[in-house]
Amino acid sequence: MELTNIRDIFRNKEEYLDKEVTIGGWVRSVRGSKKFGFIVVNDGTFFEPLQIVYGDHLENFAEISKLNVGAAIIVTGKLVPTPEAKQPFEIQAESVDIEGASAPDYPLQKKRHTFEYLRTISHLRPRTNTFEAVFRVRSLIAYAIHKFFQERDFVYVHTPLITGSDCEGAGEMFQVTTMDLNNVPKKDDGSVDFTQDFFGKPTNLTVSGQLNGETYAMAFKNIYTFGPTFRAENSNTTRHAAEFWMIEPEIAFADLKDDMVLAESMLKYVIRYVLEHAPEEMEFFNKFVDKGLLDRLNHVLNSDFGHVTYTEAIEILEKNNDKFDYKVFWGADLQTEHERYLTEEIFKRPVFVTDYPKEIKAFYMKLNEDGKTVAAMDCLVPGIGEIIGGSQREDDYDKLLGRMKELGLKEEDYDFYLDLRKYGSARHAGFGLGFERCVMYLTGMGNIRDVIPFPRTVNNCEL
Amino acid sequence: MELTNIRDIFRNKEEYLDKEVTIGGWVRSVRGSKKFGFIVVNDGTFFEPLQIVYGDHLENFAEISKLNVGAAIIVTGKLVPTPEAKQPFEIQAESVDIEGASAPDYPLQKKRHTFEYLRTISHLRPRTNTFEAVFRVRSLIAYAIHKFFQERDFVYVHTPLITGSDCEGAGEMFQVTTMDLNNVPKKDDGSVDFTQDFFGKPTNLTVSGQLNGETYAMAFKNIYTFGPTFRAENSNTTRHAAEFWMIEPEIAFADLKDDMVLAESMLKYVIRYVLEHAPEEMEFFNKFVDKGLLDRLNHVLNSDFGHVTYTEAIEILEKNNDKFDYKVFWGADLQTEHERYLTEEIFKRPVFVTDYPKEIKAFYMKLNEDGKTVAAMDCLVPGIGEIIGGSQREDDYDKLLGRMKELGLKEEDYDFYLDLRKYGSARHAGFGLGFERCVMYLTGMGNIRDVIPFPRTVNNCEL
Repeated sequence: MELTNIRDIFRNKEEYLDKEVTIGGWVRSVRGSKKFGFIVVNDGTFFEPLQIVYGDHLENFAEISKLNVGAAIIVTGKLVPTPEAKQPFEIQAESVDIEGASAPDYPLQKKRHTFEYLRTISHLRPRTNTFEAVFRVRSLIAYAIHKFFQERDFVYVHTPLITGSDCEGAGEMFQVTTMDLNNVPKKDDGSVDFTQDFFGKPTNLTVSGQLNGETYAMAFKNIYTFGPTFRAENSNTTRHAAEFWMIEPEIAFADLKDDMVLAESMLKYVIRYVLEHAPEEMEFFNKFVDKGLLDRLNHVLNSDFGHVTYTEAIEILEKNNDKFDYKVFWGADLQTEHERYLTEEIFKRPVFVTDYPKEIKAFYMKLNEDGKTVAAMDCLVPGIGEIIGGSQREDDYDKLLGRMKELGLKEEDYDFYLDLRKYGSARHAGFGLGFERCVMYLTGMGNIRDVIPFPRTVNNCEL
Repeated sequence: MELTNIRDIFRNKEEYLDKEVTIGGWVRSVRGSKKFGFIVVNDGTFFEPLQIVYGDHLENFAEISKLNVGAAIIVTGKLVPTPEAKQPFEIQAESVDIEGASAPDYPLQKKRHTFEYLRTISHLRPRTNTFEAVFRVRSLIAYAIHKFFQERDFVYVHTPLITGSDCEGAGEMFQVTTMDLNNVPKKDDGSVDFTQDFFGKPTNLTVSGQLNGETYAMAFKNIYTFGPTFRAENSNTTRHAAEFWMIEPEIAFADLKDDMVLAESMLKYVIRYVLEHAPEEMEFFNKFVDKGLLDRLNHVLNSDFGHVTYTEAIEILEKNNDKFDYKVFWGADLQTEHERYLTEEIFKRPVFVTDYPKEIKAFYMKLNEDGKTVAAMDCLVPGIGEIIGGSQREDDYDKLLGRMKELGLKEEDYDFYLDLRKYGSARHAGFGLGFERCVMYLTGMGNIRDVIPFPRTVNNCEL
């Protein structure tokens, strides 16, 4: 069918004004009178809807006036300017074909619905203003991230989802199996007989593609992953989901400083891209979801991110311990309240906290010369706290193996990882960006369930 | 670290010639003599390696000459043209710093290794020519697909991986659980007590995001998914993996013809993008992996895809039944041998086969007026067979429900899907492109295990 996207009409109106166009979309509202009426229609390609005027010269005039919200229509008519009205133009309909009616019990009537209610109809909520905006911006952020890395010749690597190793030990994992759960095959000693499972051994859903990603960084120099990751954590917060997407770049011949430069450039690139490509949506968020969002994002674009070591950060925070539920001390993990205090109250902009105690960070992070801290960095942003976590990786075979032994990790599980330090080891670093947190940060949405099309959380796996 | 990518040197040589540059990369070969030597180095950013000349004025001259293949080095020196040699230029080293040695047992010595052997070292194989080429091209194809859809304002939708429904019934699924497999909780009647599982019910890994994608197409008009999908099929072929990526666009106010136009444009766009952005890699495939590849791809770019109905195709194939292991007849599913015969021998270019018998296609495909066939299309390409499968979707509530009942599908499992036909139904269509098959098609690689970084197949889940 030869339809014009409403986006094209708004973005290139000169091409369409005073000409006949045909559009297809869904009715947002109908106001009919005796002789004529107005339809507000949205086709999902553009945030602003388009107004249609129809008159009683149309054969199906009466039928049109009875259209319910949500109906699908195809409209042909002339696009005419409306200089005296709020909208810049409208279509004077020569035909309004009803493609699909909308039953009277359509749940999205023209009133405000709570986000909680809309979560129960996740298949329909993208038809509302808020979720149309959220999920278009989500799509644009995803693309901006690809564009950023591809323009810099990073290789996109699909690391595996099903994994035979619990490499990072980062929390609870989902098991993957084809065995009959009603009758799990057992060995003589009563333990599970995984030789009868699909992969012949226990397998899980990945919590991070980093270690796999590193193997490719040692071939391509600069790589990134962008894929789903999973956590089977029983935590019912506004920031945690069981299934989420993560971006994990890994750069060789690079240290922690390079890593932070990359992270800062990437975030700024993505913000700029979204402001440029979704100005209507961003205005909407700024007005209805998070007042001050645009000021905050523009401020980020125009300022250098702060830098502070963990040790310095602890000194600052200790002076304010009376403000926190969890008191800080050197060696403690930073809680969201501390992270937000640093970025919102002290720095008033995004800040990198670096050089954390090795005890609270992963085994693969590069030991600093002090022997106590590792070359790690977390990037904290106002309103969210940690959005990025990264580090320079331990590239020394002996030090890495030593640390693994200290922590009781089995050498044989990491043969491939140690090989990278045995055959042409090079300084390298990387980070992980939680994609949904990034979407929350750029839209001001407060609950991770509202930035994932079909969110998965404890006891919730609908559609 | 301020390093220059070897890609930038080759692509913008005028900027670098006769100037000092610093590069970091991995040694492909060293030839040392008494006074000087040559290192061939690859940094993973470019398919062609760079030659380094080093002399005995360097302090570590002896050490350099002893470098093993695979070592990581950082080289500073002047880039000078070499008009008399095969390579266009070389670096005259002022310093060669050894970033990381390569142990003597490095598995990738300068000889040919079989693909089978390289599969056993999947963490190192991207350091070889073939796999460097494969995985860079894989990355470029992925980006080209995003670019194609984003330039057309399609919204990228992340459909869920963990799913509570077996909607498509498309083959065996992997179960996802957090229950203790040693001691699966049971109800009084002896069946599994899924209320104790993470999601409170049985869950699987998705086989397709299509049905979820359709819900978003009915909001955004044009959407696409690009994510992992899973099949727990016990099939050990060169074309099947348990975990693979799929692209599933879905377009509203569109019919089967629009769907085919979209598929053809997309394939051509991707081919054009890869030929333009990876000419060295594509030359390599054409020379060493699949002679004739470039001719074939260029031919595709310059021809319209063929179109044939299933019924016509069966007539053609029946005349050639003596050539096939599986004899064809109206109603039979096409096997790869039939698909390849059609596209390679009859059409000699990609071809769409349309309007299959409803019995061999999915329940959601739109019934044609003949009552026997559905508005389905498969796109067949030489060397592969089916690469894309799509259809117009049944948009009539009653017909869809009727078909579901015929097939014994439970209405309550598809409430959300039926809602799309109840509230503003619109003609719509979509297709699925198996990403790995697309990579195989564009590279000429013959085994799906060789186009996935860490492939998952029966009894194989390494790294």
